[in-house]
Amino acid sequence: MPSIDDVAKKAGVSVTTVSRVLNNRGYISSATREKVYQVMKEINYQPNELARSLFRKKSNLIGLIIPEIAHPFFSELTQFIEHYAFQNGYKLLLCNSEHDRAKEKEYIDMLKKNQVDGIIMGSMLQETDDYLELNLPLVSFDRSIADHIPLVSSDNYNGGELAAKILIEKGCRRLAFVYGGIKGYSGDLLNNKSMLAGLRYDGYSKECKKRDIQSTDFHLEINRFANQQSTVEQLMRFFQENDSIDGIFATSDIIAACAIQACSKMNLKIPDDVKIVGYDDVLLASLIAPAGLTSIRQPIEAMAKQSIDLIIKQIQGEQVEKKYTLEVTLAERGTT
Amino acid sequence: MPSIDDVAKKAGVSVTTVSRVLNNRGYISSATREKVYQVMKEINYQPNELARSLFRKKSNLIGLIIPEIAHPFFSELTQFIEHYAFQNGYKLLLCNSEHDRAKEKEYIDMLKKNQVDGIIMGSMLQETDDYLELNLPLVSFDRSIADHIPLVSSDNYNGGELAAKILIEKGCRRLAFVYGGIKGYSGDLLNNKSMLAGLRYDGYSKECKKRDIQSTDFHLEINRFANQQSTVEQLMRFFQENDSIDGIFATSDIIAACAIQACSKMNLKIPDDVKIVGYDDVLLASLIAPAGLTSIRQPIEAMAKQSIDLIIKQIQGEQVEKKYTLEVTLAERGTT
Repeated sequence: MPSIDDVAKKAGVSVTTVSRVLNNRGYISSATREKVYQVMKEINYQPNELARSLFRKKSNLIGLIIPEIAHPFFSELTQFIEHYAFQNGYKLLLCNSEHDRAKEKEYIDMLKKNQVDGIIMGSMLQETDDYLELNLPLVSFDRSIADHIPLVSSDNYNGGELAAKILIEKGCRRLAFVYGGIKGYSGDLLNNKSMLAGLRYDGYSKECKKRDIQSTDFHLEINRFANQQSTVEQLMRFFQENDSIDGIFATSDIIAACAIQACSKMNLKIPDDVKIVGYDDVLLASLIAPAGLTSIRQPIEAMAKQSIDLIIKQIQGEQVEKKYTLEVTLAERGTT
Repeated sequence: MPSIDDVAKKAGVSVTTVSRVLNNRGYISSATREKVYQVMKEINYQPNELARSLFRKKSNLIGLIIPEIAHPFFSELTQFIEHYAFQNGYKLLLCNSEHDRAKEKEYIDMLKKNQVDGIIMGSMLQETDDYLELNLPLVSFDRSIADHIPLVSSDNYNGGELAAKILIEKGCRRLAFVYGGIKGYSGDLLNNKSMLAGLRYDGYSKECKKRDIQSTDFHLEINRFANQQSTVEQLMRFFQENDSIDGIFATSDIIAACAIQACSKMNLKIPDDVKIVGYDDVLLASLIAPAGLTSIRQPIEAMAKQSIDLIIKQIQGEQVEKKYTLEVTLAERGTT
């Protein structure tokens, strides 16, 4: 493969001159520029992006840290993040934390050493200090880490209100709020106020109180998307011990799908005996139950686009607003 | 941030010496080495990975080109690919072709310029020459591109046989093979022999012929995972026009889930009126129908691990076998 030295030699200029042409820096006569381009074409020279990045101090890489790409919410989000990153000339380094603090920390160090231009963090695990010390453009997804770090989320509070409203309006009188996750992650949904998903509970609870409807909280012991069988079993036990429950608000469509399975195994009819509302409205939500799952729709594409916009503006040195709360909507289907 | 110059100055050695220490090259006395390490620690010097990559001609980046990360098969595959890449000290650049030849070509060029150490290609779109010209360690996924490029796939032929067998054994007499995709991609499943998914059809057809069972082929006009509504509608029309069909072999679990929706809208009972077998056995397969979807299970984790092993062995200059066909199994659930 021809090198920059080959170009310089053949064009009769110095390597510095070729480098200046490549990076559009310093004064270069148009004749020299033409000559260099011509030689590059002749000998089929491919500029080494790695070398150029080093020179420009810009890698055009964005790091994305999420818990699990296998989870439909994150795979759909990532699809759009990659789409908008590519449109803007950026590539995406995919980092699954796999709910493992050590792995997430290692990725943070790696991203710094590899000089990514910015990081979108959608993982909830790491101490926020590790991110703040990075001194890199950051966007935080669904978690408030510091006042000066832009935060993208959807309106979780309103999402909770909408879920309670539809269940109550459809006649439910004994509700359950079903959520999952390991401690320190969404398991702390109800206690850790930096986790914005906790606002779903606040909006939902306020609505239940206002209408004088009883609700039970049920925390699932799950830490992986793959733990579906265990989720179904835990929900079956929950239904056995709480047989008056007639409405479920699940904090994800996957948990909702597990609740549907649990009902099916226990011969509880949906929506007659139990009504179910999910969260996210992933693409599969309309295929989950015979007539589709009712869900609170997060605007996944808009959230992805917003995150990429914010990273790029920061990379370009622009000032940005610090809080972006996007609207959610109710997608009403067969489970309510 | 301290630079390599700061280290050199403080240690009283040249930058070249520091660089040699960092990259473990050339002769360096242990006293000098110790001194350099000590200074690095003192001033908290972070070696710039970009610079080191350039020096070592190794980026520790693996490019992954797939059609859509939003599709559950690819998101689960990518979860494992990232897992095993990370375990081996590699990072993953995620490239969605989005079924767009121009985008895929741009990514190929980008990956070359960014000097990734290898590419796993699971996209079916691009002319194979573009990949062969890369002159990089490659692993091809589910598509045969050249004899010297290692190929990882599961036993598609046996998958087709297993699907036909279970449908026929459960009493189906009028089967349909339902597949989708745009032309040039899996739309050419039945004509383009480089697409290994076509072998599913061969195994299935052979089994139908052997048992003298009639089968109809139905090609869905879909090009995106998100086109679920259209898929359901096309399947409803298909059932209307072919009302004797009592068994469906769908080439993905998502298509199978759409077939279940179509049956539900047309009051066809599963498994009494119509039996359905999907393909892939993604994590959601057990949640799709009331009693789960019967599916042909691809060993997604093993396929991901095999791909990473093959890329790394090639990067390290080892010879590798060229063909890896992993076993599939039947996951029997409520739709048969």
